[in-house]
Amino acid sequence: MVNLIELNERQGKILDIVKKHGPITGENIAEMLDVTRAALRPDLAVLTMSGYLDAKPRVGYTYKSDGMANKIDKLLRQYRVKDIMSMAVVVKEKCSIYDAIVTLFVEDTGSIFVLDNEGYLNGIVSRKDLLKTTLGQADIHKVPVSVIMTRMPNIITATVDDMVVEVTKKIVEHEVDSLPVVKCFIGTNNEEKYEVVGRVTKTNIARLLLDLACK
Amino acid sequence: MVNLIELNERQGKILDIVKKHGPITGENIAEMLDVTRAALRPDLAVLTMSGYLDAKPRVGYTYKSDGMANKIDKLLRQYRVKDIMSMAVVVKEKCSIYDAIVTLFVEDTGSIFVLDNEGYLNGIVSRKDLLKTTLGQADIHKVPVSVIMTRMPNIITATVDDMVVEVTKKIVEHEVDSLPVVKCFIGTNNEEKYEVVGRVTKTNIARLLLDLACK
Repeated sequence: MVNLIELNERQGKILDIVKKHGPITGENIAEMLDVTRAALRPDLAVLTMSGYLDAKPRVGYTYKSDGMANKIDKLLRQYRVKDIMSMAVVVKEKCSIYDAIVTLFVEDTGSIFVLDNEGYLNGIVSRKDLLKTTLGQADIHKVPVSVIMTRMPNIITATVDDMVVEVTKKIVEHEVDSLPVVKCFIGTNNEEKYEVVGRVTKTNIARLLLDLACK
Repeated sequence: MVNLIELNERQGKILDIVKKHGPITGENIAEMLDVTRAALRPDLAVLTMSGYLDAKPRVGYTYKSDGMANKIDKLLRQYRVKDIMSMAVVVKEKCSIYDAIVTLFVEDTGSIFVLDNEGYLNGIVSRKDLLKTTLGQADIHKVPVSVIMTRMPNIITATVDDMVVEVTKKIVEHEVDSLPVVKCFIGTNNEEKYEVVGRVTKTNIARLLLDLACK
């Protein structure tokens, strides 16, 4: 279990002083803050017991740089794709480019996942892919979306149990707007097949940040 | 100053027990955890001094629901647009739709800001706007981007000092991918003019979450 607690202003100041001047005695910290040693005792207790500071007899307080400070990452790492994902928007691979664009507007989505005849993930098309196509000479009413899609195995995917942090990293590094959330099956010829169970988007991530901020 | 510290596993368990059974004495908590009262003392000290628990003589520990638990929002609220924003991609309003699309691909951006003759913000076009246009009959080589852009004052903007949390809210609620970051000037006729100084995108927000998770 991870919970986060907030340091008060004085605890923050103590931390700054120890970072700068440590090792430093409690008396010296008290002097710098113009308070009594006794008044500082609870704050110093919180800081040592929570792993921010080390207290050594006859030496004083030192800052533990490998301590538990700012472990917001542990909190963030609790979130999984299943906690934030949306419904997937899919089309069949015979769908025309024009119909794919219409689907994109109707569903108000950024990317569309393309399924093969058996209903497994075969490709993905983004707004960018579609926009590029409309600049060319292709007859978008006739050409199927499968001609322009990014195909498996070149698709970055996620699973429901992936950490949001890891998925965010994938989205940022591969410069995509969303990832299909998939379940993997092994086919009769030992090939991997992916059932699409959702999508995880930059909007889902932005919403998570908003949820965390408004708790 | 806000810093966050992490509770250890036992402190988490104590919190759960007090939430469920409080008011409860230290002895009873120790029994439930099968440890001595003395062993619990440091943990109970952290929890009371950090504002999670209240300790009343002859009554026991109670949970402070209005305490400082989970104040991740305070940390998030420290971040401003200037901490995460990117460079703006701009075109003049006489720019053709075709050239705007080319700029979008060259700069690899989602939205383009359109400037008036004086260089102030006048409009915005998104990938979605451009894609919609290419479906129509317009000659994208001739029609200027100003014909299809969203115009001031219908543009949602941000400033460098806006909180990331507030800007994230705007982006999610208005279902846009990015906001122009602007500086406001008062023109000679008392009209407001906006200089574009950057853009803030869902990618910037995703990167912030990643930075926080990897600290």
